[in-house]
Amino acid sequence: MIQIERVLQQVLEWGRSLIGFADEHAVEAVRGGQYILQRIHPSLCETSARTGRDPLDETLIVAFCRELALLFWLDDCNDLDLIAPEQLAAVEQALGQGVPCMLPGFEGCAVLRSSLAALAYNRRDYTQLLDDTRRYCAALRSGHAQAGGGGWSYAEYLHNGIDSIAYANVLSCLSLLWGLDIVALRARPAFRQVLRLISVIGRLQNDLHGRDKDQSAGEADNAAILLLQRYPAMPVVEFLDDELAGHARMLQRVMEEECFPAPWGPLIEAMVTIRAQYYQTSIARYRSDIAGGVSL
Amino acid sequence: MIQIERVLQQVLEWGRSLIGFADEHAVEAVRGGQYILQRIHPSLCETSARTGRDPLDETLIVAFCRELALLFWLDDCNDLDLIAPEQLAAVEQALGQGVPCMLPGFEGCAVLRSSLAALAYNRRDYTQLLDDTRRYCAALRSGHAQAGGGGWSYAEYLHNGIDSIAYANVLSCLSLLWGLDIVALRARPAFRQVLRLISVIGRLQNDLHGRDKDQSAGEADNAAILLLQRYPAMPVVEFLDDELAGHARMLQRVMEEECFPAPWGPLIEAMVTIRAQYYQTSIARYRSDIAGGVSL
Repeated sequence: MIQIERVLQQVLEWGRSLIGFADEHAVEAVRGGQYILQRIHPSLCETSARTGRDPLDETLIVAFCRELALLFWLDDCNDLDLIAPEQLAAVEQALGQGVPCMLPGFEGCAVLRSSLAALAYNRRDYTQLLDDTRRYCAALRSGHAQAGGGGWSYAEYLHNGIDSIAYANVLSCLSLLWGLDIVALRARPAFRQVLRLISVIGRLQNDLHGRDKDQSAGEADNAAILLLQRYPAMPVVEFLDDELAGHARMLQRVMEEECFPAPWGPLIEAMVTIRAQYYQTSIARYRSDIAGGVSL
Repeated sequence: MIQIERVLQQVLEWGRSLIGFADEHAVEAVRGGQYILQRIHPSLCETSARTGRDPLDETLIVAFCRELALLFWLDDCNDLDLIAPEQLAAVEQALGQGVPCMLPGFEGCAVLRSSLAALAYNRRDYTQLLDDTRRYCAALRSGHAQAGGGGWSYAEYLHNGIDSIAYANVLSCLSLLWGLDIVALRARPAFRQVLRLISVIGRLQNDLHGRDKDQSAGEADNAAILLLQRYPAMPVVEFLDDELAGHARMLQRVMEEECFPAPWGPLIEAMVTIRAQYYQTSIARYRSDIAGGVSL
């Protein structure tokens, strides 16, 4: 069995300890995790001389993919009501504080948090990951609430979308596992600008590509749908395409001006391109015209 | 003669050492400076126990109003070609580095920079002010360049607009003169978020109110004009009004969540309302239907 299949098996197995967890969450997580790790592999080899962390260490890869699967599962818990509201509240509390969940059926949460705490190259990254988790959960909740008629402006939507896209979580988890020093980097305003820009890019890519599916699912938590509801005459797709291109240019400029250590250059590039990769291969999650059935 | 008249005389007198400086720059600066200082007066009295800086100290007030007048003059140097390009380049270089201008006719620059360096409650604020000055000059230049057909997205326009509105400069100068500790506060991500939000608010207020004047002056460096050029069917004013309200809600939330020391609460509030005050009283600078003639 090749490594990626073993990783998938371990994510699927772990997911069985979470009510509502679906094979799709594991499959999408492994696909995304593999894409990122492949793209930054040469650069991670460089840093491994300093950190001693092997880019191909299976324990680290499994932990990373489990965290990604957790993010997918949490998203669907909010959007698809996979679990009861009181269960979701207990899960969010547990994950954000790094404590076991008070309700049964979510033992995977504590398993994952304990393993990440133990694997953390730098303890500060674990604290950062908990903070990112609290922000992600709050943003999913706010997005869900406003889509019911809250009346956000585009600016407020994007501000929340920065957290709900969970890119900060993904990067903190990578940093925790491979010693990428994200907490020190976050002290630099330019790095936090990069985090905001890459997150807005991911949010706009997600919303543009998921527009048809969200629309047919009655999901209003999407920039295109929100703008079209508020301004029916607005050329929304053209506007958001231009916004996406503008954010990409701003990101490129700050990445050229600032000098971030390896593997942050290739890593941020991978985050820009990961969505295109997803939309080509992951048919069920982002398209409405093809029903079900994902495969790795 | 009451104090505010003496202050105006001293700003006018200083302005004579800058080619292209107009009475209007001094009048607008004193009007704005007086508005801010009045609004934060009770709060500045509190901080004066710690800093020993009198809110009514005329030397400090004159320095503040001169800096505001400089910002107005620099804006017009870009928009109205008050001075030659090589003169503007020399002025920007001098102001941003805190050195005398290499070309004659701009002695006021060095006079003001020397006085601010000498008056700085904390030397770090002076360094910050020079940094803000470089950003302001760069943003005026970029805004002017893109308005000639550069094709910015809305996001890029707003990003530049954060610097070109010069609110960071105004706040740094206040901090420098009355010991408001802006450099320490800028280390807090929430404070930098406040700076971004208040700057976007000022930019949107400015562009919405100045739209008619900018349009008739052929000035395309305005969010409303930019959006209308790109998307003729878009309900631009409605969209920007909603954006403005959204940014104001985000600002209010972060101000409620964070606890900033005096006088930052009233000061940020004053920056939100200063434009409305300006648009009521300052007819020449922001309206196209009434020609010339400003009075204090």
